[in-house]
Amino acid sequence: MIIVLKPGTTPAEFDHVIERIHQLGLKPHVSTGEHRTIIGVIGDENKLQAQPLQAIPGVEQVLPIMKPFKLASREFNKKDTVVAVGKVKIGGGSLGMIAGPCAVEGVEILDEIAGPVKNAGANILRGGAFKPRTSPYSFQGLGEEGLKILHDIGAKHDMPVVTEVMDPRQVPLVERYADMFQIGARNMQNFDLLKEVGQTKKPVLMKRGMSATVKDLLMSAEYVLAEGNANVVLCERGVRSFEDSTRNMLDMSAVPNVKVMSHLPIIVDPSHATGRPDLIPSMALAAVAAGADGVHIEVHSCPEKALSDGPQALLPPRYAEVMKQIRRLAEMFGKTF
Amino acid sequence: MIIVLKPGTTPAEFDHVIERIHQLGLKPHVSTGEHRTIIGVIGDENKLQAQPLQAIPGVEQVLPIMKPFKLASREFNKKDTVVAVGKVKIGGGSLGMIAGPCAVEGVEILDEIAGPVKNAGANILRGGAFKPRTSPYSFQGLGEEGLKILHDIGAKHDMPVVTEVMDPRQVPLVERYADMFQIGARNMQNFDLLKEVGQTKKPVLMKRGMSATVKDLLMSAEYVLAEGNANVVLCERGVRSFEDSTRNMLDMSAVPNVKVMSHLPIIVDPSHATGRPDLIPSMALAAVAAGADGVHIEVHSCPEKALSDGPQALLPPRYAEVMKQIRRLAEMFGKTF
Amino acid sequence: MIIVLKPGTTPAEFDHVIERIHQLGLKPHVSTGEHRTIIGVIGDENKLQAQPLQAIPGVEQVLPIMKPFKLASREFNKKDTVVAVGKVKIGGGSLGMIAGPCAVEGVEILDEIAGPVKNAGANILRGGAFKPRTSPYSFQGLGEEGLKILHDIGAKHDMPVVTEVMDPRQVPLVERYADMFQIGARNMQNFDLLKEVGQTKKPVLMKRGMSATVKDLLMSAEYVLAEGNANVVLCERGVRSFEDSTRNMLDMSAVPNVKVMSHLPIIVDPSHATGRPDLIPSMALAAVAAGADGVHIEVHSCPEKALSDGPQALLPPRYAEVMKQIRRLAEMFGKTF
Amino acid sequence: MIIVLKPGTTPAEFDHVIERIHQLGLKPHVSTGEHRTIIGVIGDENKLQAQPLQAIPGVEQVLPIMKPFKLASREFNKKDTVVAVGKVKIGGGSLGMIAGPCAVEGVEILDEIAGPVKNAGANILRGGAFKPRTSPYSFQGLGEEGLKILHDIGAKHDMPVVTEVMDPRQVPLVERYADMFQIGARNMQNFDLLKEVGQTKKPVLMKRGMSATVKDLLMSAEYVLAEGNANVVLCERGVRSFEDSTRNMLDMSAVPNVKVMSHLPIIVDPSHATGRPDLIPSMALAAVAAGADGVHIEVHSCPEKALSDGPQALLPPRYAEVMKQIRRLAEMFGKTF
Repeated sequence: MIIVLKPGTTPAEFDHVIERIHQLGLKPHVSTGEHRTIIGVIGDENKLQAQPLQAIPGVEQVLPIMKPFKLASREFNKKDTVVAVGKVKIGGGSLGMIAGPCAVEGVEILDEIAGPVKNAGANILRGGAFKPRTSPYSFQGLGEEGLKILHDIGAKHDMPVVTEVMDPRQVPLVERYADMFQIGARNMQNFDLLKEVGQTKKPVLMKRGMSATVKDLLMSAEYVLAEGNANVVLCERGVRSFEDSTRNMLDMSAVPNVKVMSHLPIIVDPSHATGRPDLIPSMALAAVAAGADGVHIEVHSCPEKALSDGPQALLPPRYAEVMKQIRRLAEMFGKTF
Repeated sequence: MIIVLKPGTTPAEFDHVIERIHQLGLKPHVSTGEHRTIIGVIGDENKLQAQPLQAIPGVEQVLPIMKPFKLASREFNKKDTVVAVGKVKIGGGSLGMIAGPCAVEGVEILDEIAGPVKNAGANILRGGAFKPRTSPYSFQGLGEEGLKILHDIGAKHDMPVVTEVMDPRQVPLVERYADMFQIGARNMQNFDLLKEVGQTKKPVLMKRGMSATVKDLLMSAEYVLAEGNANVVLCERGVRSFEDSTRNMLDMSAVPNVKVMSHLPIIVDPSHATGRPDLIPSMALAAVAAGADGVHIEVHSCPEKALSDGPQALLPPRYAEVMKQIRRLAEMFGKTF
Repeated sequence: MIIVLKPGTTPAEFDHVIERIHQLGLKPHVSTGEHRTIIGVIGDENKLQAQPLQAIPGVEQVLPIMKPFKLASREFNKKDTVVAVGKVKIGGGSLGMIAGPCAVEGVEILDEIAGPVKNAGANILRGGAFKPRTSPYSFQGLGEEGLKILHDIGAKHDMPVVTEVMDPRQVPLVERYADMFQIGARNMQNFDLLKEVGQTKKPVLMKRGMSATVKDLLMSAEYVLAEGNANVVLCERGVRSFEDSTRNMLDMSAVPNVKVMSHLPIIVDPSHATGRPDLIPSMALAAVAAGADGVHIEVHSCPEKALSDGPQALLPPRYAEVMKQIRRLAEMFGKTF
Repeated sequence: MIIVLKPGTTPAEFDHVIERIHQLGLKPHVSTGEHRTIIGVIGDENKLQAQPLQAIPGVEQVLPIMKPFKLASREFNKKDTVVAVGKVKIGGGSLGMIAGPCAVEGVEILDEIAGPVKNAGANILRGGAFKPRTSPYSFQGLGEEGLKILHDIGAKHDMPVVTEVMDPRQVPLVERYADMFQIGARNMQNFDLLKEVGQTKKPVLMKRGMSATVKDLLMSAEYVLAEGNANVVLCERGVRSFEDSTRNMLDMSAVPNVKVMSHLPIIVDPSHATGRPDLIPSMALAAVAAGADGVHIEVHSCPEKALSDGPQALLPPRYAEVMKQIRRLAEMFGKTF
């Protein structure tokens, strides 16, 4: 931590800053420059980050040196983490290929989608039973009924399943049916929910919030890790921007950026990121080329009748084509699924 | 709802679109232009908004005409809503002047802040007992203990109190102690939480999400209203942007914008919006001039020792000065507090 | 300037960093912490800011301490600068009330607008002769003919005039007719144009770029100041954001923010910032309450026939009403126009 | 074009809207719905887009149906445009691999960079002679001297050269030395400059503005095309966002998005987009996988002494490694360079 003093700080203000640093059990290291005095603070930066040093009279800037996350950091774990979802591995060269409809709508329709995506190479089935919809008047999901259907169709096709949990009270219920929790973008900083899934052993797919920085995303992962659950897979799904021809803006650089800062796997969801089926295939390929540990694509056999997000779903045959290309690309990079 | 067809749509595709519209019990109205065919759809647009019309083959664009919220809309209620928080009124010319520390830290410190802010003209006391912190290692609030302190100090100074609720399971507990729920920016789309507070009768202070549009904010209010709780006060508290010299970007135009679209009161929180005590006073004044129904300011008697967000708090004497100016401004606009 | 080294930096890398600092004629000041080594660099930071220190092997972060602008900075000039535009003063308690149509369209129409805005209290007339239009097929302005009309109508109503200059080659021409140059948002970083107006003595109205930070805006002002022209008035006119119900997002906090960092006057343009006549009046009031040195409003006597940006113009009677309120507000703050 | 009327529009207002449409030589097509009246306008939409219909009393919304660009649109030209830069082709399966230092700094240093990048597979040499720097105190480029050096070193290594032109007055000078003009992000809406390069026959590398939408980018290309120069190559180089760990946010989806909307080639510049050498290689690979027609990478043999943007440059050996991988990827997609 570095503290920069305002020009014209009084000796009393200076002494007060130094005293506060000592009170915290830390050591100040003063450099007096031509225009500014700077104080390097030696000691546990985590202790300091919780302190409102900026508010001390005479302080102009407080510059943190260390990253605010620890368990999620690359420094904590040099080796890439591999997360197991049922028999499927995500990370370390194994790609998680997640596919399925936005929402679970019924047994037949899910079965009709699961078969083809499994054949195309998908290894995890997705489907929402609890849906976070912007409008209270939109379809809110089938609830437990949807969870059962997802579980059964997953079992039938031998695929582990992932589904969103929105409410800490639903965690035990969702845990019974799902192989992986999904934390949606809108709940990335729903900290009580994060703590709750952190207390289970089930893997967690953590979607990036709509205006979360990469550091924010890693801080939210840290919440889960700090509770003892190390099985976190991050997911880039686009962020809010001024661009109005796509639903969100896919921040592809988040993939290598996360890999520099953290040991956790990261996958990409081009469906929510673009909202446009015509852009999904090339973004899925780009994600694998960027080093992603998997791709999350929404597939629906009849997008025009889908109860949620139909317009952004691929048809199963288009998904199968894309998966062929992804497979060749993955091989080129020495990865498998 | 207007549906625009792609150039070169086949007659079969056209017929299919028309058929789908009829299936939904609605009437199509076709205009054939030089470059595009457009279909006006007559009937209940809410029915249509839930439909994935964009996914029908041949459809290029779907343009909604109506706003997606109803109970929150100005069309639903031409008169400004006035929300009562204890004996304090917000809206319709009455300003809600909310002040207090970011977090409740203890009896004495809160008392030391509440007295001066009450004297300065604040009419609602704030303080967090459950704190949504980016880091799991930061102070998370005193919990029920904090709620009790807030309630008691509020009672002592005859001020109703507002405090954040983060978890649907905490709603009954918070309801016991607080006069108003706060929904934080990070939970603006925590829909289960919104439904839960919607089922109480207590007023709700709904903070705008970090990347929520004004429409998104009104849709979240709609969730509370749809459950039967009409006492919603909106709060502009800045949104995420590229500007790096302020914590967030205060969207002041949200104030008149909300008033055009909705009958709900809206207040402004310059503390979180700017994160800078040197900018808070002028932004508080601007908010009142813009037509806001109140101002939310964090005040702390010792910002450098605050357990949360100290650097953005005003000292009580500075708050008192600002309130003097706000009072003159409010009078000029015929408003009171 | 502070240089933070990566953990695990070799002694050779360390020596190389120190050597580079000495080569630049500066002094290093080393602090060795638990997790990181930091080097404070003493000396002329401007020299350093031009250096790619970040690229030196072993360097993790380079943290500047000083602001990158000098002549525009508050430290350079503690007193507020007052800019004279003809007989009108902007800054130091005098408000520049700029009004007029987006584009100069003809003698009669401009005369029809100038009279009422002058009567309402406007003290500077605006109108574009060279128009930066997103589409090459939109009206591009009347050119020199437009400049003449603007000059003549300004003279008739005894108002100095401001008009945009887009091309360095037009500077001498525009200088002949206008009392103040406008640099449009799209040209805020057209550095050759900035240098060219910097070499005149005419005041410059510098609009903030669509995604410029406040620092970027001040750096662009620095370009003009560095050429010897000290008459710069800044203008907040909204920035790009995800909000889709307003044309741009008005960053009202830029007003006090600029006043903390710089001595230059700043005005607000709610017309371009919101693009909505129903929001302009309250944003104009908020701007004055926030401390702005003036307000820039587009006024047109027949918005539906305006050749540019008609939908965002106020009608003259509405402008007159707003000006009455602004006058009362200005008086309250001890300002005049 | 679709015009939506406000609820409660008077018959006189309605008649006035219809009259205005007829005055413009167009035909209205009225649909009266339950909540709104909508008017489809049949005829040349370009004529209408220049009209301030939004300002007509009674009009609630104006919804354009057609895209505002024409010559740049995919509808205008179904076949991908291939742009020749000297003997190098960009588009239609041929990749433009542009490399070189940010700025031309001298003969030896440029030669030292050009040799290795040519060997690694780069086919166009870049280097700035006129530099748009945020600070007036930063190195501004060598000017004509730099152009000569770039031209000579390009000739020596048999590579066509691209360099930025910032000022319309420099166009003839730059044209003499360069094979391709670069329009920088800050000048994407410097319309006089666009017209000037539009009047030459030289290819133009058009960088996306910092907060330009994909449509804005295509509108700027339209300016060049409308002047008769059809040789435009677009360049995605990142946009401004709230993410603070990268210099800009690379909008990778702009690549397929442009290809849907336009026939023009598009390349990606991961150097400016990320500002981080550790992210450039994977973003370059992702760009090719996304379908880009080339990659623009800054390379410097001694980044720590570069006079501009050193920290984001790759060293020549790292560039050569990346190019090997790009070559394999290009082959997989049937592309060559």
